[in-house]
Amino acid sequence: MKFEVSVLDWFAKLWEIEKNEYWGYVTTGGTEGNLHGILVGREQLPDGILYTSEDSHYSIFKIARMYRMRCVKVASLISGEIDCAQLETSLLANKDKPAIINLNIGTTLKGGINDLDLVIKTIDKCGFTNDQFYIHCDDALFGIMLPFMKQALRISFKKPIGSVTISGHKFLGCPSPCGVLITRLKYINAFSRDVDYIASRDATITGSRCGHAPVFLWYALTIKGLTGLENEVHNCIFKARYLLNQLRGAGIGAMLNEYSNIVVFERPLDDNFTLQSLCIAKDVGSRNCACSIHKLSRNY
Amino acid sequence: MKFEVSVLDWFAKLWEIEKNEYWGYVTTGGTEGNLHGILVGREQLPDGILYTSEDSHYSIFKIARMYRMRCVKVASLISGEIDCAQLETSLLANKDKPAIINLNIGTTLKGGINDLDLVIKTIDKCGFTNDQFYIHCDDALFGIMLPFMKQALRISFKKPIGSVTISGHKFLGCPSPCGVLITRLKYINAFSRDVDYIASRDATITGSRCGHAPVFLWYALTIKGLTGLENEVHNCIFKARYLLNQLRGAGIGAMLNEYSNIVVFERPLDDNFTLQSLCIAKDVGSRNCACSIHKLSRNY
Repeated sequence: MKFEVSVLDWFAKLWEIEKNEYWGYVTTGGTEGNLHGILVGREQLPDGILYTSEDSHYSIFKIARMYRMRCVKVASLISGEIDCAQLETSLLANKDKPAIINLNIGTTLKGGINDLDLVIKTIDKCGFTNDQFYIHCDDALFGIMLPFMKQALRISFKKPIGSVTISGHKFLGCPSPCGVLITRLKYINAFSRDVDYIASRDATITGSRCGHAPVFLWYALTIKGLTGLENEVHNCIFKARYLLNQLRGAGIGAMLNEYSNIVVFERPLDDNFTLQSLCIAKDVGSRNCACSIHKLSRNY
Repeated sequence: MKFEVSVLDWFAKLWEIEKNEYWGYVTTGGTEGNLHGILVGREQLPDGILYTSEDSHYSIFKIARMYRMRCVKVASLISGEIDCAQLETSLLANKDKPAIINLNIGTTLKGGINDLDLVIKTIDKCGFTNDQFYIHCDDALFGIMLPFMKQALRISFKKPIGSVTISGHKFLGCPSPCGVLITRLKYINAFSRDVDYIASRDATITGSRCGHAPVFLWYALTIKGLTGLENEVHNCIFKARYLLNQLRGAGIGAMLNEYSNIVVFERPLDDNFTLQSLCIAKDVGSRNCACSIHKLSRNY
């Protein structure tokens, strides 16, 4: 528990929430964090509709089904991020119901980072007051990277968000799936209950949890330190840009979002990395496509 | 995956279901197994009512809330097992809705073993046909013990059950929470979906899973073997009976169910094991109570 609290305090500080105002725990991975954050949202707003972009991790749609929530799938931009114009249309069409919004920071396949600030502005523009919406941030991979990049989106509980989750086995490299979930303490009393035989309150999804995971997380954060993490982030971004340029130089269409280390390109045909020069503009945008038609229309 | 399949095959054989007829996975613990089994039941019978005894693990009630299922709490006998007369009354009062029944094999606090055969007989007596009910067996601790005790309840997929789950960190002693869930393959297609980017179908609760857990389970099963497990089970039962007799000999009321290794007695006042001689008959039955009134009425 000491390791766990120490890890949670670290993330609470990162996401700007006071020690006496947050509640969190070390989860079994990204999905449990999403299961928890979305459940907190649903318990706050029982008839809320879940909005999430079509590029969201498949677990979000699984969770909507598990929780019997109405789920509105919002279109994505070519970058993978949620299309706020579409979100606005969807919100206005369902103004009578509260909104529970899942934000991907970023998306699994393209690393598209949902623009939290623009989403908040959109909700506001649609006339939803603070007690009519709940935002869950699925920060699985990028949650630990963005804070080390200037100008990148800032995730903070000073903004009207309800919960944030990251994975420990992704950027931090823990040897078994784990994650961190942080939410506002005020939400937790609503669905926890005293459990006499463990002399504790249970407000988690899986109940018993692995004692190793907090140690792995604590170790990763401690051994790397802020400077180590910053260096790793910049190194990843540098290598992703290098790969992008090498692929493009070899005539292979490829895409890389800003602040992302995910390079997207066509699936090779075999282990020898044989690539077809198919048009992939529909998936990654014409400026990232290297097919004969799109190559002619620009230089890179 | 090889370790996982090997572990699952072992349990499939124990619970008498053919390799091509079962589906299962290694979970993060008892709660995930229950989350999965009850979800399979709900997807089979969407408007089914969840029946579970008041002595059930707290996670069952948490799950009912998560899944937005109506939950009927059935009274327990003094042993902790479900009161089938009460179950019958509840089933008959809700005959218009299918029944999803959670069975505790055994209960967390008293080790009361729900009588699967009597429950099936009760469902049958109430006129529920095979497509109107689903039984999930929460075998957390005893699932691995009962098969090694003659005359004990037999858990088998030859009986009309839908899913069985056990914990790996309890009797088998794995060093981190894990478990096994087995269900019928035919149920799984209903709620799994193809996930392109992992080149697999996801039909689990938590998605990514720990690679160590199947190894721990495989190791525990292999190193102990059937004979080793049998010896451990008999040793546990022997020690539980010894403790019961020692407590009773010291004038302390205590209870031990048949086929159980859980000795129930009053919570000591301090670390020196100071016990009050309060009447605990309400909790463990008068024949297990050592208070002055109940002690007088019998000899042990």
